[in-house]
Amino acid sequence: MSKVHFDTIALIGIGLIGSSLARVIKREGLADKIVISTRSEATLARAKELGLGDRYTLDSAEAVKNADLVIVSVPVGSSGEIARQIAASLKPGAIVTDVGSTKGSVIAQMQPELPANVHFIPGHPLAGTEYSGPDAGFADLFINRWCILTPLDGTDPDAIAKLTGFWEACGSRLDTMDPLHHDRVLAIVSHLPHLIAYNIVGTASDLEEVTNSEVIKYSASGFRDFTRLAASDPTMWRDVCLHNKDAILEMLSRFSEDLASLQRSVRWGDGDALFDLFTRTRAVRRGIIDAGQEVDAPDFGRQKAGQPSK
Amino acid sequence: MSKVHFDTIALIGIGLIGSSLARVIKREGLADKIVISTRSEATLARAKELGLGDRYTLDSAEAVKNADLVIVSVPVGSSGEIARQIAASLKPGAIVTDVGSTKGSVIAQMQPELPANVHFIPGHPLAGTEYSGPDAGFADLFINRWCILTPLDGTDPDAIAKLTGFWEACGSRLDTMDPLHHDRVLAIVSHLPHLIAYNIVGTASDLEEVTNSEVIKYSASGFRDFTRLAASDPTMWRDVCLHNKDAILEMLSRFSEDLASLQRSVRWGDGDALFDLFTRTRAVRRGIIDAGQEVDAPDFGRQKAGQPSK
Repeated sequence: MSKVHFDTIALIGIGLIGSSLARVIKREGLADKIVISTRSEATLARAKELGLGDRYTLDSAEAVKNADLVIVSVPVGSSGEIARQIAASLKPGAIVTDVGSTKGSVIAQMQPELPANVHFIPGHPLAGTEYSGPDAGFADLFINRWCILTPLDGTDPDAIAKLTGFWEACGSRLDTMDPLHHDRVLAIVSHLPHLIAYNIVGTASDLEEVTNSEVIKYSASGFRDFTRLAASDPTMWRDVCLHNKDAILEMLSRFSEDLASLQRSVRWGDGDALFDLFTRTRAVRRGIIDAGQEVDAPDFGRQKAGQPSK
Repeated sequence: MSKVHFDTIALIGIGLIGSSLARVIKREGLADKIVISTRSEATLARAKELGLGDRYTLDSAEAVKNADLVIVSVPVGSSGEIARQIAASLKPGAIVTDVGSTKGSVIAQMQPELPANVHFIPGHPLAGTEYSGPDAGFADLFINRWCILTPLDGTDPDAIAKLTGFWEACGSRLDTMDPLHHDRVLAIVSHLPHLIAYNIVGTASDLEEVTNSEVIKYSASGFRDFTRLAASDPTMWRDVCLHNKDAILEMLSRFSEDLASLQRSVRWGDGDALFDLFTRTRAVRRGIIDAGQEVDAPDFGRQKAGQPSK
């Protein structure tokens, strides 16, 4: 059997990502045993009802004993606390990884806590939906999505290879990157879009003369696209903002600068500048579709996906 | 036959909206004859190849002769020119409508040109995709989408009822509204979202240290959602910006003000303010789904719609 395989995988956190991992690990037979830990009793009970693992515990230290692979899938602001909880119980030689959307901060929080005899390899699967919790996960979540590892200097290449094989078995495409570069890339492709989406939904909700019911009713003319990202998990995104501050602030500044220039074009009726911007942005979407990272069906294929019809 | 029916419908402009109308008119038997006119020879030839109408002409004046219903589906900046072209050829008693995204400007452009013996009823179907041209249309485009009529004082109620019946037969839900209120509502639900989408795609394209290929590769983490609106027709959107300037500038100001406040929360690490905003925006999406204006499938149902899978 050439496929990657672990005796025991511990999943710390069982939300959208953790529960998707549980499902794909089971389906692909990537471990003999899955141990699930989360700090919420209700969530743990639900994970058990869903049959996501083989063992369930509220105690993360208990969960990682004997685990060959530990995957921390919690809001990034809790990374340090988890590392402190599990450090003394980790099995020598275990691989410890995470799925957090910021890497510089996660490394700063976790690395000092973890013992030298485990392989700490920070990671980030670029996958998700606007839903959260153990019911939201599904085994196909990672298929064709990138997973970025940001290994630290001196990490055992065999451990990196094994974790790479694990994510590939989940359907991911793998990349490695410097943690700080990761944080800047993600600031533009993920963190800024989420902040902008949250912001525009907030602006629309606060209008006096256009009612919320009008915003909802007529949202198919553009606005609804933004509401998907703006429905993402608030705790996760609060933590991302707090833990990738510098890169986010820089991207926000650039965005605002460009928006001021666009606003000026609208005010002064500079049709050529508007047409020029609106033309070059078209090519970006084509590139994304050609790269297999987006459907080419009109309107995200919403019609096929169950749009109410006559 | 209680269903609305016209002897001859003239479609001026045969892009996404015009060609969708042609298809649904034919499917539902809403006219005996469809006459199609557009200023581009290539587009007219394509419409003919697609069999969208019964008669084809580059001359809009020629097209409207004998038409009982004239639907102008061109970029809003061309509305006045079309009105001037067709005015002298309109059949007395004909209904003349349009599908433009701005209503104040269209009325100002068209009304002074049109004769008193036709029924001019401005309209706006809130329907579309990011694709354009006669190949992009489809007969189901209007199903369950709102169509807003902004009739002027003194318009014949029978003509409004007949046009209402027409759009209902196309699958639309109908509303009437004051033109200026329409323009403010659309500025927030449609025009601002498009501008923001164009802007963020522009900002991402201009970064020095994060390459375009990285932006494309990792776009599934949020960014790609914005590229759909930013792939919309540049001419149409240039004209919208030029013809709904005041309302757009006001919405841009509100958005920027809110964004500055959000940026401040990020800078000063105000997690409570972030969490509060990210929580209340969630409810808006739920409202849109409950109103039947959005799918509740995760990720817009992209997976079902042909996302590459293993």
